[in-house]
Amino acid sequence: MERADLLARCSDEPGQITRLFGTPAHASALRTVSGWMKAAGMTVRRDAIGNLIGRYDGGDHGGSALLLGSHLDTVRDAGRYDGVLGVLVAIAVVATVDAAGRRPRLPLEVVAFADEEGARFGTAFLGSSVLAGRFDRADLSRVDADGISLEEAIREFKGDPAALGPAARAPASIAGYAEVHIEQGPLLEARGLPLGIVSGISGQTRVALRFTGVAGHAGTVPMELRHDALGAAAELTLAAEAVARETAGLVATVGQLSVTPGAPNVIPGAAELTLDVRHPEDAERTAAVTRVRGCAERVAATRGVELSWEALHDEDAVRCDPRLTELMTNAARAAAGTEPLSLPSGAGHDAAVMAAVAPVTMLFVRCADGVSHHPDESVAEADVALAVDALARFVEDFEP
Amino acid sequence: MERADLLARCSDEPGQITRLFGTPAHASALRTVSGWMKAAGMTVRRDAIGNLIGRYDGGDHGGSALLLGSHLDTVRDAGRYDGVLGVLVAIAVVATVDAAGRRPRLPLEVVAFADEEGARFGTAFLGSSVLAGRFDRADLSRVDADGISLEEAIREFKGDPAALGPAARAPASIAGYAEVHIEQGPLLEARGLPLGIVSGISGQTRVALRFTGVAGHAGTVPMELRHDALGAAAELTLAAEAVARETAGLVATVGQLSVTPGAPNVIPGAAELTLDVRHPEDAERTAAVTRVRGCAERVAATRGVELSWEALHDEDAVRCDPRLTELMTNAARAAAGTEPLSLPSGAGHDAAVMAAVAPVTMLFVRCADGVSHHPDESVAEADVALAVDALARFVEDFEP
Repeated sequence: MERADLLARCSDEPGQITRLFGTPAHASALRTVSGWMKAAGMTVRRDAIGNLIGRYDGGDHGGSALLLGSHLDTVRDAGRYDGVLGVLVAIAVVATVDAAGRRPRLPLEVVAFADEEGARFGTAFLGSSVLAGRFDRADLSRVDADGISLEEAIREFKGDPAALGPAARAPASIAGYAEVHIEQGPLLEARGLPLGIVSGISGQTRVALRFTGVAGHAGTVPMELRHDALGAAAELTLAAEAVARETAGLVATVGQLSVTPGAPNVIPGAAELTLDVRHPEDAERTAAVTRVRGCAERVAATRGVELSWEALHDEDAVRCDPRLTELMTNAARAAAGTEPLSLPSGAGHDAAVMAAVAPVTMLFVRCADGVSHHPDESVAEADVALAVDALARFVEDFEP
Repeated sequence: MERADLLARCSDEPGQITRLFGTPAHASALRTVSGWMKAAGMTVRRDAIGNLIGRYDGGDHGGSALLLGSHLDTVRDAGRYDGVLGVLVAIAVVATVDAAGRRPRLPLEVVAFADEEGARFGTAFLGSSVLAGRFDRADLSRVDADGISLEEAIREFKGDPAALGPAARAPASIAGYAEVHIEQGPLLEARGLPLGIVSGISGQTRVALRFTGVAGHAGTVPMELRHDALGAAAELTLAAEAVARETAGLVATVGQLSVTPGAPNVIPGAAELTLDVRHPEDAERTAAVTRVRGCAERVAATRGVELSWEALHDEDAVRCDPRLTELMTNAARAAAGTEPLSLPSGAGHDAAVMAAVAPVTMLFVRCADGVSHHPDESVAEADVALAVDALARFVEDFEP
């Protein structure tokens, strides 16, 4: 808990926690975490994008290691646990191993991923993408708000854009990946449980919609002659909500909505909105998106407005590894003395990227009010202690 | 039509028509219009706020005059007919009288009001308010986007803030007020009629609403635990529309809507919107607003979100004078050879303010697609000719 407080001081903005990829605050966090890794007996290196990797030697299993970790970057005005907690719990577990003088069955590596939130370059998972060999070099030309490219930022951060490819780890070198993370949702708190086991990471469809109607004077155009774009957007918002309520486990969100011209006395001529749909099962998600799109088309036709539907991205769901998940469930049960809740993760995580090259498991820690990406983000010290205990048991019981 | 084109060049912004109160473009328009008034045989003066008043002498009826007019200011990026047309038609009518060498039954005055749109100071009807003795001196301290107060702007415009009270005309000095204006709506076009007679100017209620829910992660908060502020706003938008559709003659518009924090992956924690409700009958309007407010309260309660409902203004409906309306109807019928459409005006006009001190009547001219407050604003020359003919007949037949 103290370390989370200390890392919160590594911020690009005084008075808040904003630690974007490659900034001085990020570099400062890396120096601090590197010191803690070394104190836990690890040798520390940085890869080409700036992932910090602490390695604790163990028995040889064909050169493979068990990876533990999460990310060190944050959104703007963030809380102090999203990402950070997973790194700190992993370091604490290695410190326990080191203190006990036990040589682990295979090498342990703690990875502090450089960029998961993507708050600076509008990307996400840059760190785990490099490590998993999934990095798209086209992203190097993305620029931040100041016009600095990702390529320049990596270089400035003492990384090496040319070495991003070779930084990918051979899948055979990763026996497994385990990530601890705050839940970022209210379910554990609602059930009165400290720990949860992630069954999988939900797939996600993100769509940009635009309804184009006809602007008009709010006082002079009768209702029956209107083509109100906001009316269409309002119907779509409620239709997406209704589809989600009818489908167990589905969430659908209209998070952005803006109207043009946007004056109190003008009928909206255009409305732009975003739709975010997630479900642990791809088929359910795809079917829901199809239903919502059908609603949007009917609404547009009925109101005589144009619909533009632009799919921004589609990410398939990721299943956590059954064997590692069972191991983590046993470890969490033994640590907490209660059956952990099995739940999908509606939020994306580095584990979803790592799943492409290794078996993964995730342990969720209860957080207050389900709040994340906000200064009010909070976890209980007792819950964190249980997470350290659970991850230590998992590491102890893990066999490649 | 040529004069409307010429006035369109008096603009604060090159490439568009933006003529805000008291600007150099406004001053330039006044010089131009003053020349046309003089050419039509009028003596011209400016009052303390900058209303331009051209007077054509006639028979004495206790010192009273028949006032014709509209306004010369525009919204930003406006069309060329809103306001301007009424001034130009009035000047054309006086020119006809002058050319015929007829001494009118009573003096005619053409008033080019200085500010009706209120685009610079967030007010409306400044010009007619001064003339009707309804000006609120508290408005003098309002400032524009550059921090210039209305008081300074009036002085800069060679007006006299201290003389705004005395600039009010005694009601006995105004025998009537007749205003020609583009419809700003689609009804005349839909009926295939060039001219309409305004039965009254709708009352208007403007409300600022805010729903405050709970922001949350779009992927991790299940639908049943959400307090989505945009969901509430969407329901309110559709409820207002439904109430309006069920009430003949009612229009209800949500013209502004913004959500906070406004990210694709965040459930909206707050939504702010405006509601504009209009009807020619105050009782119908008030009842509709009460119904919509009831909907808003039920929606807020059901969703567990807070509602803030702030009435911004309530303006009662204004009836046009029955005798003048009949005169104008006869004049329009004689000019066009068809029965003019009787319709309420959903938009506010200087006539609504003038109605406090004089009998008023309004003649609407068909406009293309109901478009106004936009560069595409358009009227047919033939329709304008009919409006000139109709107003000339009205002036000829008018008796104090």
